[in-house]
Amino acid sequence: MHQSKFTVRTSGRGTTDITTQVQDVVREAGVEQGICHVFNHHTSASLMLCENADATVRRDLEAWMQRAVPDGDPLFEHTAEGPDDMPAHVRTLLTHSSLSIPVTAGRCSLGTWQGIYLWEHRHAPHTRSITVTVQA
Amino acid sequence: MHQSKFTVRTSGRGTTDITTQVQDVVREAGVEQGICHVFNHHTSASLMLCENADATVRRDLEAWMQRAVPDGDPLFEHTAEGPDDMPAHVRTLLTHSSLSIPVTAGRCSLGTWQGIYLWEHRHAPHTRSITVTVQA
Amino acid sequence: MHQSKFTVRTSGRGTTDITTQVQDVVREAGVEQGICHVFNHHTSASLMLCENADATVRRDLEAWMQRAVPDGDPLFEHTAEGPDDMPAHVRTLLTHSSLSIPVTAGRCSLGTWQGIYLWEHRHAPHTRSITVTVQA
Repeated sequence: MHQSKFTVRTSGRGTTDITTQVQDVVREAGVEQGICHVFNHHTSASLMLCENADATVRRDLEAWMQRAVPDGDPLFEHTAEGPDDMPAHVRTLLTHSSLSIPVTAGRCSLGTWQGIYLWEHRHAPHTRSITVTVQA
Repeated sequence: MHQSKFTVRTSGRGTTDITTQVQDVVREAGVEQGICHVFNHHTSASLMLCENADATVRRDLEAWMQRAVPDGDPLFEHTAEGPDDMPAHVRTLLTHSSLSIPVTAGRCSLGTWQGIYLWEHRHAPHTRSITVTVQA
Repeated sequence: MHQSKFTVRTSGRGTTDITTQVQDVVREAGVEQGICHVFNHHTSASLMLCENADATVRRDLEAWMQRAVPDGDPLFEHTAEGPDDMPAHVRTLLTHSSLSIPVTAGRCSLGTWQGIYLWEHRHAPHTRSITVTVQA
């Protein structure tokens, strides 16, 4: 069992590839076979496994989310922090606060096209805390 | 490895904060560092991590879900148990049957604003079974 | 800790019940109490726990997804592999790349109505790799 925490400084709404940081923790852990668990400590940013070859995939995911959960939706009462506050909570709920990935041969055994992304849902830059736990 | 089961009696559609029950199991387990896994054994209720300070967040999530997955939608064939039956399955799919949370210093290491909620998606009260597994 | 990989040949968009294959891995592992982790190594197919008694539930989930994430949506730029390519990524994001299920008395402790399904989101048949990790 190895646990490590790091932060990611986001530049506002959008995705950040954190695959390398997570694989680095797995290597430090020295675990050959197990589970790597990635956790995001926030309710307005989330994690996803996503196609890592073509950036238009992430742009299209963003476009779909903006249509499904529009900023400034009059449906929402919780608007104290602005028109992107409540949409950020819905987007986090619809995606993932944690990811669990098998560790095989000392690395997260991702599919060829799977990358690990932090998705900032607020328009303002934020510092997001991530905990990685590697279980042998 | 420590495993414990409890039930929650819901009062129909809505959320129940189960953070204290889960933290109690972690304390009983006596695990300092590890993973806490929470599992809901049902397909018409689900789990979520959600902003825990302002109840309007959960009301807004409910409002968004009711618009995205309306009760009585003529799209659905599976209506034997009523107009909220199939929406409950969709809502469960879009949220989470299980949550995995890092344990650090003997507690679920939740973010400041993260609470653990059971979300009942049926209108009638139900008794929901939850299994908590704490891994060291 | 026991890890096993298998493949599922899908016949195009639709669900395949993999509960038996997963329970078989848990039995082989000989683990009495723990966590069973199921991982899908692809970004255009996903996993879900779903009501296992009435096939109309899975048909209705499919119908809901087709309406929420329509094939050929002009919103999408990433269309190189066809009109179902980008919808498959959105559908995967909205559902699950992995499932974690408590193991109790040597089996995945599923609810009475919970089955484990692989959901192929592409129209063409694919071979999907699944890794099951059983932790004691």
